[in-house]
Amino acid sequence: MTHLVYPGALHTRFHHALGAMFLMTEAIDVLRNKGNEISDEEAIGATIAILLHDIGHGPFSHALEHSIVENITHEDISALFMDKLNQEFDGKLNLAISIFRGQYKKRFLHQLVSSQLDVDRLDYLKRDSFFTGVSEGVISSERIIKMLNVVDDELAVESKGIYSVEKFIIARRLMYWQVYLHKTVISAEYLLVNILKRAKELASQDRELFCTPAFRTFLYNKINRESFETNKALLDTFSELDDYDIFTSIKTWTKHDDHVLSKLCRNLTNRNLYKIEIQKNPFSKDYIEQKVKKIKEKYNFSEEESNYFVFTNFISNNAYNPQIDTINIIDKDSNLIDIAEAADQLNISALSKPVKKYFLCYPKDI
Amino acid sequence: MTHLVYPGALHTRFHHALGAMFLMTEAIDVLRNKGNEISDEEAIGATIAILLHDIGHGPFSHALEHSIVENITHEDISALFMDKLNQEFDGKLNLAISIFRGQYKKRFLHQLVSSQLDVDRLDYLKRDSFFTGVSEGVISSERIIKMLNVVDDELAVESKGIYSVEKFIIARRLMYWQVYLHKTVISAEYLLVNILKRAKELASQDRELFCTPAFRTFLYNKINRESFETNKALLDTFSELDDYDIFTSIKTWTKHDDHVLSKLCRNLTNRNLYKIEIQKNPFSKDYIEQKVKKIKEKYNFSEEESNYFVFTNFISNNAYNPQIDTINIIDKDSNLIDIAEAADQLNISALSKPVKKYFLCYPKDI
Amino acid sequence: MTHLVYPGALHTRFHHALGAMFLMTEAIDVLRNKGNEISDEEAIGATIAILLHDIGHGPFSHALEHSIVENITHEDISALFMDKLNQEFDGKLNLAISIFRGQYKKRFLHQLVSSQLDVDRLDYLKRDSFFTGVSEGVISSERIIKMLNVVDDELAVESKGIYSVEKFIIARRLMYWQVYLHKTVISAEYLLVNILKRAKELASQDRELFCTPAFRTFLYNKINRESFETNKALLDTFSELDDYDIFTSIKTWTKHDDHVLSKLCRNLTNRNLYKIEIQKNPFSKDYIEQKVKKIKEKYNFSEEESNYFVFTNFISNNAYNPQIDTINIIDKDSNLIDIAEAADQLNISALSKPVKKYFLCYPKDI
Amino acid sequence: MTHLVYPGALHTRFHHALGAMFLMTEAIDVLRNKGNEISDEEAIGATIAILLHDIGHGPFSHALEHSIVENITHEDISALFMDKLNQEFDGKLNLAISIFRGQYKKRFLHQLVSSQLDVDRLDYLKRDSFFTGVSEGVISSERIIKMLNVVDDELAVESKGIYSVEKFIIARRLMYWQVYLHKTVISAEYLLVNILKRAKELASQDRELFCTPAFRTFLYNKINRESFETNKALLDTFSELDDYDIFTSIKTWTKHDDHVLSKLCRNLTNRNLYKIEIQKNPFSKDYIEQKVKKIKEKYNFSEEESNYFVFTNFISNNAYNPQIDTINIIDKDSNLIDIAEAADQLNISALSKPVKKYFLCYPKDI
Repeated sequence: MTHLVYPGALHTRFHHALGAMFLMTEAIDVLRNKGNEISDEEAIGATIAILLHDIGHGPFSHALEHSIVENITHEDISALFMDKLNQEFDGKLNLAISIFRGQYKKRFLHQLVSSQLDVDRLDYLKRDSFFTGVSEGVISSERIIKMLNVVDDELAVESKGIYSVEKFIIARRLMYWQVYLHKTVISAEYLLVNILKRAKELASQDRELFCTPAFRTFLYNKINRESFETNKALLDTFSELDDYDIFTSIKTWTKHDDHVLSKLCRNLTNRNLYKIEIQKNPFSKDYIEQKVKKIKEKYNFSEEESNYFVFTNFISNNAYNPQIDTINIIDKDSNLIDIAEAADQLNISALSKPVKKYFLCYPKDI
Repeated sequence: MTHLVYPGALHTRFHHALGAMFLMTEAIDVLRNKGNEISDEEAIGATIAILLHDIGHGPFSHALEHSIVENITHEDISALFMDKLNQEFDGKLNLAISIFRGQYKKRFLHQLVSSQLDVDRLDYLKRDSFFTGVSEGVISSERIIKMLNVVDDELAVESKGIYSVEKFIIARRLMYWQVYLHKTVISAEYLLVNILKRAKELASQDRELFCTPAFRTFLYNKINRESFETNKALLDTFSELDDYDIFTSIKTWTKHDDHVLSKLCRNLTNRNLYKIEIQKNPFSKDYIEQKVKKIKEKYNFSEEESNYFVFTNFISNNAYNPQIDTINIIDKDSNLIDIAEAADQLNISALSKPVKKYFLCYPKDI
Repeated sequence: MTHLVYPGALHTRFHHALGAMFLMTEAIDVLRNKGNEISDEEAIGATIAILLHDIGHGPFSHALEHSIVENITHEDISALFMDKLNQEFDGKLNLAISIFRGQYKKRFLHQLVSSQLDVDRLDYLKRDSFFTGVSEGVISSERIIKMLNVVDDELAVESKGIYSVEKFIIARRLMYWQVYLHKTVISAEYLLVNILKRAKELASQDRELFCTPAFRTFLYNKINRESFETNKALLDTFSELDDYDIFTSIKTWTKHDDHVLSKLCRNLTNRNLYKIEIQKNPFSKDYIEQKVKKIKEKYNFSEEESNYFVFTNFISNNAYNPQIDTINIIDKDSNLIDIAEAADQLNISALSKPVKKYFLCYPKDI
Repeated sequence: MTHLVYPGALHTRFHHALGAMFLMTEAIDVLRNKGNEISDEEAIGATIAILLHDIGHGPFSHALEHSIVENITHEDISALFMDKLNQEFDGKLNLAISIFRGQYKKRFLHQLVSSQLDVDRLDYLKRDSFFTGVSEGVISSERIIKMLNVVDDELAVESKGIYSVEKFIIARRLMYWQVYLHKTVISAEYLLVNILKRAKELASQDRELFCTPAFRTFLYNKINRESFETNKALLDTFSELDDYDIFTSIKTWTKHDDHVLSKLCRNLTNRNLYKIEIQKNPFSKDYIEQKVKKIKEKYNFSEEESNYFVFTNFISNNAYNPQIDTINIIDKDSNLIDIAEAADQLNISALSKPVKKYFLCYPKDI
């Protein structure tokens, strides 16, 4: 929904997959030129792994990740797709899957696909910065890639690339708050989530909703991890879904006779988003209650209905999380040091504390 | 459909409308600074006119311009929308409409909106060049705008801007053949047109087709200029349509039991486009007949069905057409000269002859 | 000397002066549109002040600031030039000079010319980042300028520009260490400084040195603040000097019979720069002595001569110094807050501690 | 002198040499990937050839090509430098020299270095377009290089690159008239040439002129092809010369007691260039005589002196000259066709007629 704030941000996951794949081939070239052995099979494996790493994303990606299916992440669905493709291609994806899952001996190949300095991030930060026009996120992917090397099977950055890595961490933090967690984007994403929630609620009561056959499967049934296991055809149906199915339905639901659903849908299509307040501490019960009361009075909503219009939650992010894995710098003696220690310019350890913010959404007209 | 060739080309008509509006404000500033009188009302009028100039475009713009409605151009529908908005805004668009239709006394204001060097072209050439990555189309809109002036109520370019105008005409020509009339784009657009044609054919036989309520109106009825006049609500229904309605339907039609429609739709969603041959002269009947025969045999198609898969037509373009209107250069003595005469570097008159090319489409597997 | 590391960095002070002047006109437009009164005289005054703010820089700017003249900064010489121009223009620069010196009542005009967020920095960071290709320094000057406002005659940034300001401070810090204080740049600048020092030493002994007449004045005489006061013609002579005078002399001095001078000059023209080591603590006397000993032995240098080839010093920088002045953010209640307190993403106060590093230079061949 | 019109154009021959070398490595990669055999020795040879192709240029390149030396072109001097380097490197440049001179059997390697579509032009057009900001010259070097192939040892462009080549020829033409032959650039270059001519005139009369020792050799002696042959040290002296020697002298000559020389030099340093008129036909004797008369009266100049201030000449350019060599397009049957025939969009043959223009220069104050 970022394009509602930054109209240029219409680039797709397809662009990102190609871009990350391109960076992977660049990274492999650099590592090979520095004497690290990477066979052609390994190179192809890592390239397939990054090309497919996001294939499990459904419509509107992260925003609806837990609205369309339950108890299963997009990474799990990516894995299911890879397994299916592996069958079709007679095991040719074995190595790619092993790298993707972090099971392959050369750990650095997995780190190129998924770590705190993977080609995934190197691509999306630069791409999102370009298409939003938020210059704060500009990073020099090329330079970072040129500084990559491998020590003891661990991916690491040569010491003269240290400023670029520091900048990369800063850029990621600023992009989170200026783009990914921009308050208007959050407001729009929650509107979308609430629309799906209401539609599923109505579907569970067997109310009729316009939708494509594929979307119907996910709207009128509870689909979770087990569903994919027991019903092998489900993955195909999932693959037929995209933003078009969802948004076309939302357009028609603007005239649905459930006044909650139709109001939510009109609010989205008319870009009449929730007003959103953000603060460091939780909102007081009183303040929330006061908003709920107003909405009930104004629109004659029940308690349950008003929850679609007034709600609070929190967002949080940390730019660098050494507890997950570290970004390694190679010092003069070829030892690896965590960037949080190696950096002498920026207080990276300060950046590794997560920032948490609370928000409260309610209609603009109350 | 250009994004099927140039994946970056996902920019929308909304971006273009804003961009052209921005260039209009720049052009007005420049003209005012050179002493041409433009009142605030006129400035707003010209700005509204350019903002709305394309509002009558339906889904997939030019590609489906004559598939969804009949006997009415997008310019006419733009005019209908403007009239409607004018009613809602109590006549505040009177001046904008007058400028848009070329009825206002200061002719140059209309020329800024619509002529061979209007801000519409200045925006789309640059924008399309940027998003496709085709550097041949790069033009310096800013420089051309800075060189604009008015002589005898006619828009004109100062003589030192002559090279920029020559380059603009060349760029337009190259963009036509490298982008707008790129053979794969043509192939994809005709596939889309044929899908709509088949769907309408089936609809006329009362066969059931998945579609949104708004799309149903246009699929199951013949809508033309008279329809809009007699049924005032139709314009609202038209405004509900966008690419989402069409493409969602096409996705579901891939499983339709009409094998022509479903095959066409699968070809589009799987990017299995027609093979397309291009040449300067018409294709021989024999050659075409041979293709038709093959397709009939392979798929057991009737004559009528095979027309959806094998067909010929032509495309044509001229970069500069002085018969419509001229691009004027201001010489040393403040007289206006047609760029075709003023240019000493490029043979502009050679460019004003239209180029015509014939194409033949047929499935890749025959 | 930055072009010895980043070959693209050939842009000049002239470009910077024009660029800063352009940003000043943008800033004034923005402030006026927000209702801050700025008369045409004030606008012209601020624009002249920024256009001339660096006019007192001599050849190679900062690098030779204390080598060509003594006890007088480039700001002082800028002021002398402005006074002189003011005389020539019959007092028309009165207001510009008052703004430049911080004596004008509207303090924010001076802050636009000289503060921690002035248009000087907004121009040079972006320009230097562009021409060096160091993307870490990219800042969005336009966005920061659009967020400027004035509260109680103080320049300040609206709260939604906070991330851009945080990024600006980070960018400045990274540019210092990646560009301005890059170790090879430091090495080259000290080589240049030592060449001038040696040449002046020889001049003081009345040894003949090839140089232009203007350069002769500064090479064979001690020029300081008093000299400019007593000899009014000196400013003209100073204005005749530029990089050409110095570098042409250095080229001819490569064949001078003083072996220290000729060796230094050959080292510069052949880009045979000092090897430079950098560390957080001072270098030990032993380590330095060992280098000195080697150079004496190898080249048969005296103690005094060897000082031109082996020496230590330090560099230091802080990205944001609230003790000089603060960057103010305007909060929701229109109060001013120091960015170091307002920033919730980056630890700005950590950035306001100066970083100090020691370096040791010596010839590569010892 | 282009920076006097386009201030950004401060890029140097060094940048161009590196850029062209980079494009050569790209071109070799592309050609190898298409199956053309290029040994490592050949690749290095072609790369050295392009790196050194312009090494024979003296100060201010083309502008002073025939002012500093006589009867010897910069290509000849480049060849002398290559021979000298070849001696120093024990014959390691044999292949590079053979390619440079067009004597090597694989003709396409020479064509990459020097032809109508060589990497020299591909680099300088794009570079000059970037640094001047003249977007008319933007070409897609990368795309053209990707379309290169070899047929019968001839360099050629695949047919789908045809629009890019057409655009390249147009861009070159527009760059000539908008940049290289821009009237103010011509005016500045002739001022520079006249300064050198006057200085040599004075030197021939043994008048004293401030200059560096290296420059003195060329100012006080007639240096031609034979001089380089008989005096082997001369090439070293030539290599010491650069723009610094010339411009430093010009700065000091502003105070020379020859009033012609000092006036010319002041005109250059103060950017008080000749007024220049341009037209398609020669200027009438009467009109010229009238200007000469005025200048004589105003400054009391002799006939000979006035020639430094009033003079006429012509400039000429053709964008594509098939008489020298052709740009080849590879058609569907792998035959080579001259672009002038292959192009169906632009009238390339019209572009191959040279355009000639006459100019007249005289001081602004007459």
